[in-house]
Amino acid sequence: MPLSNVSIDGKRLLADLYKLREFGTYKTGVHRPTYSKVDMESREWICERMREAGLTPEIDGVGNVIGRGEGDGPRVLLGSHTETQPYAGWLDGALGVMYGLEVARAVGRGVDVISFADEEGHYSSFPGSRSYIGAFSEADIDAGRNKYEGTTMREALATAGLAGRRRVAFEPGRYKGYIEAHIEQGDTLESTGEKIGIVTSIVGIWAFRITFEGVQNHAGTTRMAIRRDAGLAAVKLIAAIDALFPTICAERTVWTVGRITLDPGAGSIIPGGAEVVFQIRDADSEVLRRMGAALEGLVAEADKGPCRVALHNVSRSTPSLMDAGFQDALERAAERFAPGLHQRMPSGAGHDAQWLARVMPSAMLFVPSIGGISHHWSENTSDEDIVLGCQVMATAIAEILAS
Amino acid sequence: MPLSNVSIDGKRLLADLYKLREFGTYKTGVHRPTYSKVDMESREWICERMREAGLTPEIDGVGNVIGRGEGDGPRVLLGSHTETQPYAGWLDGALGVMYGLEVARAVGRGVDVISFADEEGHYSSFPGSRSYIGAFSEADIDAGRNKYEGTTMREALATAGLAGRRRVAFEPGRYKGYIEAHIEQGDTLESTGEKIGIVTSIVGIWAFRITFEGVQNHAGTTRMAIRRDAGLAAVKLIAAIDALFPTICAERTVWTVGRITLDPGAGSIIPGGAEVVFQIRDADSEVLRRMGAALEGLVAEADKGPCRVALHNVSRSTPSLMDAGFQDALERAAERFAPGLHQRMPSGAGHDAQWLARVMPSAMLFVPSIGGISHHWSENTSDEDIVLGCQVMATAIAEILAS
Repeated sequence: MPLSNVSIDGKRLLADLYKLREFGTYKTGVHRPTYSKVDMESREWICERMREAGLTPEIDGVGNVIGRGEGDGPRVLLGSHTETQPYAGWLDGALGVMYGLEVARAVGRGVDVISFADEEGHYSSFPGSRSYIGAFSEADIDAGRNKYEGTTMREALATAGLAGRRRVAFEPGRYKGYIEAHIEQGDTLESTGEKIGIVTSIVGIWAFRITFEGVQNHAGTTRMAIRRDAGLAAVKLIAAIDALFPTICAERTVWTVGRITLDPGAGSIIPGGAEVVFQIRDADSEVLRRMGAALEGLVAEADKGPCRVALHNVSRSTPSLMDAGFQDALERAAERFAPGLHQRMPSGAGHDAQWLARVMPSAMLFVPSIGGISHHWSENTSDEDIVLGCQVMATAIAEILAS
Repeated sequence: MPLSNVSIDGKRLLADLYKLREFGTYKTGVHRPTYSKVDMESREWICERMREAGLTPEIDGVGNVIGRGEGDGPRVLLGSHTETQPYAGWLDGALGVMYGLEVARAVGRGVDVISFADEEGHYSSFPGSRSYIGAFSEADIDAGRNKYEGTTMREALATAGLAGRRRVAFEPGRYKGYIEAHIEQGDTLESTGEKIGIVTSIVGIWAFRITFEGVQNHAGTTRMAIRRDAGLAAVKLIAAIDALFPTICAERTVWTVGRITLDPGAGSIIPGGAEVVFQIRDADSEVLRRMGAALEGLVAEADKGPCRVALHNVSRSTPSLMDAGFQDALERAAERFAPGLHQRMPSGAGHDAQWLARVMPSAMLFVPSIGGISHHWSENTSDEDIVLGCQVMATAIAEILAS
């Protein structure tokens, strides 16, 4: 099939992105928390842009902004999210929403655009995309609470003027699928000089708490031989993980100890308790199972020592496979505009696309992150790479709509 | 020299200890924070007991309670402290003060008794004994602050009615020396079935902060190969200490990681910073120097890795040697009343005696701690062991005064 000759307007795209950055500018980045005044103002501004592009906009009861095009025929849903982490980057999800808007303008018809609310999880875990696919209940809204300052999600929605609005649910059969652009948030593309990442899957995350129970005692009067030091048990387990995991992991598996807490945490007291916050990510469920089993083995071995060691599952998300046909379309478009400078890669971070993939074919396209920096105001992508990514996306969307 | 036939009154001693426990009883222990109402009431009660024993009591401007005997001739100072850690044991330092009182009564003359204020460090580091030897300035009082609830030491002294009182300073030449009894706070005596510990020295403590500087990044999108994980660097250093230190330590050396802090400490963020609170204790300065140098070596080695690692000295206290003649006297008395059931041992914990040793010959005697428990309300020593320890002390004091 010949590739479409659709052409995006790079200047218009960049102008919109620059304008969106003005809502909550912080240094060269943005501070635009979910449901804040500036976040709601940006959503209204997005509605105006959608209207200009011939879409009918709506801000729904959870803050999702959806712009629907008229007419029948094949249709795709494009988007991402526009609120930010605190004092974070100007692109992140904003890139994907503005790509959607620009592709809608360039392709002309068959494109709906969405900005999912609170992908960054200020109030809950993916409330926008989960609400859209029917996996976020009223009780989930009731339970939502701002993790930084404690406001309930209900209060925040009321303050934002969204109380009582209907929540938009996806319409089965309306779309061929969902495609989301995002910055890579890592340095894989930059380190290889490549321009486009075609996401094969969004990783699953297995998150754990590991607890250690020893005996708290005086750090001066308790001989080394009789200590049951919960902190030392934690250190030994983490060192054992560090020794074993590289020998059994897959190429892209990552694992992280994010927090270590010793109880009571005083210089002159042997810790009687310890807790380790640990997670493993991989795009392959089989790899996650293998690593999880290895972790269980290490914990069981550690439990034979002087402290009681226990593994607690916190959450297990399943890797989300991206649609193969969409990947092929994105790859053909990438090869046309950035020949040899694209790769297929998993997404190590979570995205709204992992929820959309439960109800329709979904795909993601990445553009390079300068220095791999993410969730920091200095996050950036070159204007050239931003424009190139959108052109690749528009070309792939035109092909998908025509196929 | 024949041993004295001095004999203590065990029932009187135990009755006084039981009575003192009533000031702030918590379960079978005591909650008697420095300068609290109940602490000040207990100090007044101690003054009454001193008066009954023929001593002239005084509560000074830092809360020290000293009871002085009349007359000339050889003289010793006996004591310890009577405030407690929060919700802690009934004996701890109270044992040493009540031993002093009972020995003063049994021996008849030549014994002054002291209860040093705040050995447990609610407001500062050994303010009572340091004030007494002239090593605690008015500026030190100004800087004192309750570590649990923030009240300044000045405020607390005023509330306790001590503002403006003179601070008692030791009188050079008045004493042959200072002798302090205390519970062992470990399980060395219990584990060998012995009854009396004769302290050879009080350990020095070398305390450190070790800091790790890596690069904070996203735990999903940052490949393992390029991570600079400050938490992992901390874990590896602690594991290296755990491997090396047992090969270079002395018999009684102890070392402790009391706290590990990862920054920012979130499950999905690779820690960009870490801090480890570490200490080494030994009774031999040479051992402390050797261990400290080994630590410096491990830190320098760690600093060659992906994170910057730095060692910060927090404090270095010098081991305090106990007087050899006093140790001999205590050992002879112990052999008479507990033949074969005594040992010489270092003190792993700090005590007022480490400060007194700077200005006069000093010594310490330990009695067994049941289960080695200390700084907990369940701390205990059998009545029989309490009485035995005091009889040994009285006999040694009589010999020292007669020599």
